[in-house]
Amino acid sequence: MAESEGAQRIDGKAIAESIHQSISQEVATLKERYGKVPGLAVVIVGERKDSQTYVRMKRKACLDVGIKSFEADLPATATEEEILDQVLELNANDEVHGILVQLPLPKHVNERKVLTAISIEKDVDGFHPLNIGNLTMKGRDPLFCPCTPKGCIELLKRSGVTISGKRAVVVGRSNIVGMPVALMLNNLDATVTIVHSRTKDPESIIKEADILIAAAGQPLMIKGDWIKPGAAVIDVGTNAVDDSTKKSGYRLVGDVDYKEAKKVAGYITPVPGGVGPMTIAMLLQNTLDSAKRGFAKEAA
Amino acid sequence: MAESEGAQRIDGKAIAESIHQSISQEVATLKERYGKVPGLAVVIVGERKDSQTYVRMKRKACLDVGIKSFEADLPATATEEEILDQVLELNANDEVHGILVQLPLPKHVNERKVLTAISIEKDVDGFHPLNIGNLTMKGRDPLFCPCTPKGCIELLKRSGVTISGKRAVVVGRSNIVGMPVALMLNNLDATVTIVHSRTKDPESIIKEADILIAAAGQPLMIKGDWIKPGAAVIDVGTNAVDDSTKKSGYRLVGDVDYKEAKKVAGYITPVPGGVGPMTIAMLLQNTLDSAKRGFAKEAA
Repeated sequence: MAESEGAQRIDGKAIAESIHQSISQEVATLKERYGKVPGLAVVIVGERKDSQTYVRMKRKACLDVGIKSFEADLPATATEEEILDQVLELNANDEVHGILVQLPLPKHVNERKVLTAISIEKDVDGFHPLNIGNLTMKGRDPLFCPCTPKGCIELLKRSGVTISGKRAVVVGRSNIVGMPVALMLNNLDATVTIVHSRTKDPESIIKEADILIAAAGQPLMIKGDWIKPGAAVIDVGTNAVDDSTKKSGYRLVGDVDYKEAKKVAGYITPVPGGVGPMTIAMLLQNTLDSAKRGFAKEAA
Repeated sequence: MAESEGAQRIDGKAIAESIHQSISQEVATLKERYGKVPGLAVVIVGERKDSQTYVRMKRKACLDVGIKSFEADLPATATEEEILDQVLELNANDEVHGILVQLPLPKHVNERKVLTAISIEKDVDGFHPLNIGNLTMKGRDPLFCPCTPKGCIELLKRSGVTISGKRAVVVGRSNIVGMPVALMLNNLDATVTIVHSRTKDPESIIKEADILIAAAGQPLMIKGDWIKPGAAVIDVGTNAVDDSTKKSGYRLVGDVDYKEAKKVAGYITPVPGGVGPMTIAMLLQNTLDSAKRGFAKEAA
């Protein structure tokens, strides 16, 4: 009952699942038509627990929808050259339509150099500067949009939120979320403001947002009374905070005070179960799109 | 007297001249040290009167500061391949440190293809998507920033306007001015909003700007009472409006109502004589910087 009085909860988990289903169907159709399936290579270097979890989730998601998963696991001691060689080998492999290098890489490796080595035609993470340049420029289209920002836009669209002409505020300006989502909202004709750590009085700016994307990585930074009544709130933050009532000793919270914000907002994503599941769904979508381009080219 | 009551007039012409002078000195120093001078190639296709005027101004500015000007004048009937060949030839020419293709190109030519063919190390216009991508991404630096946006920032800095932490509003989102200047302001820690043709109630947003960059190409669109008292106003607009009292039959006006705005603003650029002269100054600066990189590399 409380829920129905306030914001519509955007169920990212359910939306991601329905995207997985339609990808699964498309993969089956491709297999029938071309006798081939899309392939995604996930490169991991070293044994960070969190990275291993993410990579396992991505590989499992591939299997679930019928995308072929290529594993490239390098030891933490791998040299930059060995990693670059691995990327070049995957660039040359026709069965691989997407390459993702799990970040962070070990400190002795130049991350930028490795990411820039990925063929832009397989850059399913969308972080190659040429893809970002084409996302920034009017009249050009990137081959891929970064997955988490693309997931945010998808959640808005599937919830029936109009973007064109709306005031959008993006909190955070990272390469991975804040900046690309701001560019995508601008491309969709929202009037966008980017709020960041140097912004004075962020509250007054956030209060004007019809669409709020919170991607600051600051637990519960955005209070309920900062939300404009009826606003669509997409919370990208996933912050672990101590919680002695949990077995694990912590719980996950967003950048937005969900409990208070949902009383005011029109639409809101929970954490977890909001943006999180969309990132992998969009990764699969980018891989599928890449494979479709590849198969069409080969068939031509 | 009226002037002293209101905004400080930012004299772009004088600032550009002082930049020309210091470039001229640096060119002389380079010539002494390396026995070589920077080179700029300006490619023009066809005989549009306005393009010819711009190209002539650019070439003359080169001569004035001691930069060697390479002329590449192609007929309006030149094929795309001929233009591309010309660009590739200039890419390979060690004496050329900057290549600028005057736009617009004739309709039968793919402008994007030609611009992307320019070596990013000679892209003094800063429009290559890889340069724009690197401008967009935190932790990366483009080899060149687009000239007009760079000129706007230079005017603010030389006028002593603080950018970090300020609210900046950019009116217009073109590839050439609006978008790159917004990115540059964000990189300098301003809180940036981009206002465009689909923005509802632009007046209320513009009123909050400590720094206003007007690049909409809409004559006198921004009224005096839209300006926040004390704001720094950079007017990129250069619009010809009918004026029967002039011999030419027209006069140039900006996007801002200068007469009214200067009563309220803290700083303001006139049109003409504000941003205009800075574009060529920044083009020369980009060419100089490119030559310095080239000479240092050759000497290493």
